[in-house]
Amino acid sequence: FTCLPGYRVLNFTIQFYPVTSGCRYVSKTATKTMVEFEYDAPSMKTEVPGPRSKELAKQLGEIQNVGAVHFFCNYEESRGNYLVDADGNRMLDLYTQISSIPIGEFTHTHTNNCSFSTFVNRPALGILPPENFPDKLIESLLSVAPTGMTRVQTMSCGSCSNENAFKAMFIWYKLKERGMRLPSEEESTSCMINQSPGSPNLSILSFMGAFHGRTMGCLATTHSKVIHKLDVPSFDWPVAPFPRLRYPLEEFARENAQEEDRCLEEVEDLIVKWRQKGKPVAGIVIEPIQAEGGDNHASPDFFLKLRSIARKHGCAFHVDEVQTGCGTTGKFWAHEHWGSDDPADVVSFSKKMLTGGYFYRDELQPYRIFNTWMGEPSKNVFLSEVLNVIRREKLLEEVTRSGKALLQGLYELQSQHPHLLSRARGQGTFCAIDLRDENTRNDVIQRTRNKGVLLGGCGDRTIRFRPALVFKEYHAHQFLNIFSDVLRDYK
Amino acid sequence: FTCLPGYRVLNFTIQFYPVTSGCRYVSKTATKTMVEFEYDAPSMKTEVPGPRSKELAKQLGEIQNVGAVHFFCNYEESRGNYLVDADGNRMLDLYTQISSIPIGEFTHTHTNNCSFSTFVNRPALGILPPENFPDKLIESLLSVAPTGMTRVQTMSCGSCSNENAFKAMFIWYKLKERGMRLPSEEESTSCMINQSPGSPNLSILSFMGAFHGRTMGCLATTHSKVIHKLDVPSFDWPVAPFPRLRYPLEEFARENAQEEDRCLEEVEDLIVKWRQKGKPVAGIVIEPIQAEGGDNHASPDFFLKLRSIARKHGCAFHVDEVQTGCGTTGKFWAHEHWGSDDPADVVSFSKKMLTGGYFYRDELQPYRIFNTWMGEPSKNVFLSEVLNVIRREKLLEEVTRSGKALLQGLYELQSQHPHLLSRARGQGTFCAIDLRDENTRNDVIQRTRNKGVLLGGCGDRTIRFRPALVFKEYHAHQFLNIFSDVLRDYK
Repeated sequence: FTCLPGYRVLNFTIQFYPVTSGCRYVSKTATKTMVEFEYDAPSMKTEVPGPRSKELAKQLGEIQNVGAVHFFCNYEESRGNYLVDADGNRMLDLYTQISSIPIGEFTHTHTNNCSFSTFVNRPALGILPPENFPDKLIESLLSVAPTGMTRVQTMSCGSCSNENAFKAMFIWYKLKERGMRLPSEEESTSCMINQSPGSPNLSILSFMGAFHGRTMGCLATTHSKVIHKLDVPSFDWPVAPFPRLRYPLEEFARENAQEEDRCLEEVEDLIVKWRQKGKPVAGIVIEPIQAEGGDNHASPDFFLKLRSIARKHGCAFHVDEVQTGCGTTGKFWAHEHWGSDDPADVVSFSKKMLTGGYFYRDELQPYRIFNTWMGEPSKNVFLSEVLNVIRREKLLEEVTRSGKALLQGLYELQSQHPHLLSRARGQGTFCAIDLRDENTRNDVIQRTRNKGVLLGGCGDRTIRFRPALVFKEYHAHQFLNIFSDVLRDYK
Repeated sequence: FTCLPGYRVLNFTIQFYPVTSGCRYVSKTATKTMVEFEYDAPSMKTEVPGPRSKELAKQLGEIQNVGAVHFFCNYEESRGNYLVDADGNRMLDLYTQISSIPIGEFTHTHTNNCSFSTFVNRPALGILPPENFPDKLIESLLSVAPTGMTRVQTMSCGSCSNENAFKAMFIWYKLKERGMRLPSEEESTSCMINQSPGSPNLSILSFMGAFHGRTMGCLATTHSKVIHKLDVPSFDWPVAPFPRLRYPLEEFARENAQEEDRCLEEVEDLIVKWRQKGKPVAGIVIEPIQAEGGDNHASPDFFLKLRSIARKHGCAFHVDEVQTGCGTTGKFWAHEHWGSDDPADVVSFSKKMLTGGYFYRDELQPYRIFNTWMGEPSKNVFLSEVLNVIRREKLLEEVTRSGKALLQGLYELQSQHPHLLSRARGQGTFCAIDLRDENTRNDVIQRTRNKGVLLGGCGDRTIRFRPALVFKEYHAHQFLNIFSDVLRDYK
């Protein structure tokens, strides 16, 4: 196939620096330059995975487990919303590396403000930060800090971000308890052998269906799939029910409000119960939309009440925006939909933000959060550039627009195929729909892929839509047309 | 100060691609090209931290905790073994970003074999790896795989590497126990709420003084400092004593052998005890040299016996080479000094390896190790280049040579200052010496830094030497001269 695409120039002058073939640099010196160098449609040569991907999987299988590998990609040829695989199949991508690509799968941006040194030299940020580090944080992360938060800690990935946020909450909780008193001799010696009081019996309250990562602290708050959890030791921490809303929401307003109240009551009961057990809840962690667990939504009212419960019981409130953050719901952070000026004590992020990390309120500032790398400055540089593009091109408005088209289309398909589809839902392009069962869901994903659209699943029988922020209305229609064909052929 | 250094060309032709000022690219097209673009001596303008660093620390303090920040760096001006700070102070670096810089602090290498795309586009490696991923793994990590290991899993950082290695060991252990039987309904439902049998009461045995990371699973095996552990909930896992060898080793051969036997007996006792407690030991984790815990060494005999004990009791044996790996002991892996052809079931790495991850034996291959990024392919590309340089320039021989000079110098200074120094020890350039107490240690580090050499501490009163692999004999002498001056002035 040819890689020569339809160029689309977005109101800006183009400046190309062809350096190696298949690679375009967009310079920051021409400050208003943004090129989306994209294909105009899917183009399929083989079933996916094709023969080349199968051959590579065999090869990689000699080196590591490939049970989860879908296919191999040609990232040099991939552009914007289109992912090209090793067999030359070109797919419209509504999964974007598990929701981790912000402004188009493989848009090449390059800033002259940072030298190659930024990419090859990785400092130990906690002890020897580069001279421009405060400025780069201000330019990148702090420019999108959630309301009420002026502090941020970077980390390497989502799990590390949540692990360290949990630690920050534990340390904050014990500091409150201890006051000005120094740690006792007993605390100091007992912690060295993992025993209380030095290693305290504190807990984090999480929700059934939640996903907060896979390292052992995070995993104790993850409750999405057996395969994530089985055989790994865990902590006896409380797990509250997450509301199961009924759709369409406007028909079940009363039932849904009751369901949310039931869950909140359970949260309070658990906090009391775990305190009585001697394992007080230091923090509550929740996703604004449960993603991996099946795209489960709750109302702003639910989250605001939960935040109040946390405050009432002296627990920190941690909003995990690893998947929902960076514009995908039409606001930069999903919690902005709650309309609160004090949404959380901690907000963690990763994926589309390119760097992991968490924002936090002043009170949660422990000296003891530390590791060798603590993130990577080059990611902040890329993030600055991504945020520039998001602002310049008003991509949040774009997301709202294309999300509306996507969800509207899903509603229509759902009414055409009531035996197959249900519970179409979403915010921005962060949309989902349920299939009638798991096998059907997997089969539909496979068929859609073979027609040129890459989708991902979540929960038991849900398809989650996670396009990049450069996904436009016409991409939504392109997907909906193909999806409609797949569903029509489905018995 | 001028940044014009002494060039030193190492037997190769030079090929420069000046792209931005202060940055040199070395191309792989000229395959035998390696330039070390370095200064010839420290040069100090101010005390460290100087006024500019203090000002920046104040600025960064508004954004995050800066309690651990030493000073700010000018990485654009830093070269080879010399780190330049924000005040223009140029220091010989024997700490190298907590031992995480392989071939010189800021040697610029660039390979034409990878486009910029590799650095800006980060795939979800577990599901959509790039086409060249198997080749890149073979070129980079597999080319240095420990004996008996043909499989490798990459991860983003050291903690994630160890966390996932632990998970692999737990899953392996339960799989052995379960055999072909599928997980029971009870296992599946109980794990979702963190309860046994699905979340089993398994443990990892670790050693007092160990450091394996700071996320909650790793932290339960870390026992180096109170400040790492206090206030964070932990697991009731067994902690064995690590041998405390007496120096000089040749004078205390019998005592040290007894001490090692005592520790090994304790290991077996703990394995039995924890099995009886219903928390069987699934794996043993150990560093070949305890680094953060104070540079504690043990004999090859100790490690080989420990490996046998692990096998005898059906525990996996995990060697953590995060700090010791990548050539710093004069062999690529520190465990090579044991002379075993079956050293471990798992070997984890990070830091100088640029990517985190772990090698593992075929049996320890769970499908269920997964996360969004699973490392980063650009790190493999850099690692390939670093490994090329290590081989081309025979840097392991260099490390052995300069390590010998360093340790010999430490022996001499120790005999000149018996009231100040003791227990000089090391392998390759991975050397250490004890000061008489913690305050003296910190003070000596500070004074040495103000004279132009950057050092790091570990344990209670130890200085650890962690130069890069391009540290030469004359750098050792440069350091020893300055260190000698500092000690001479010390009351």
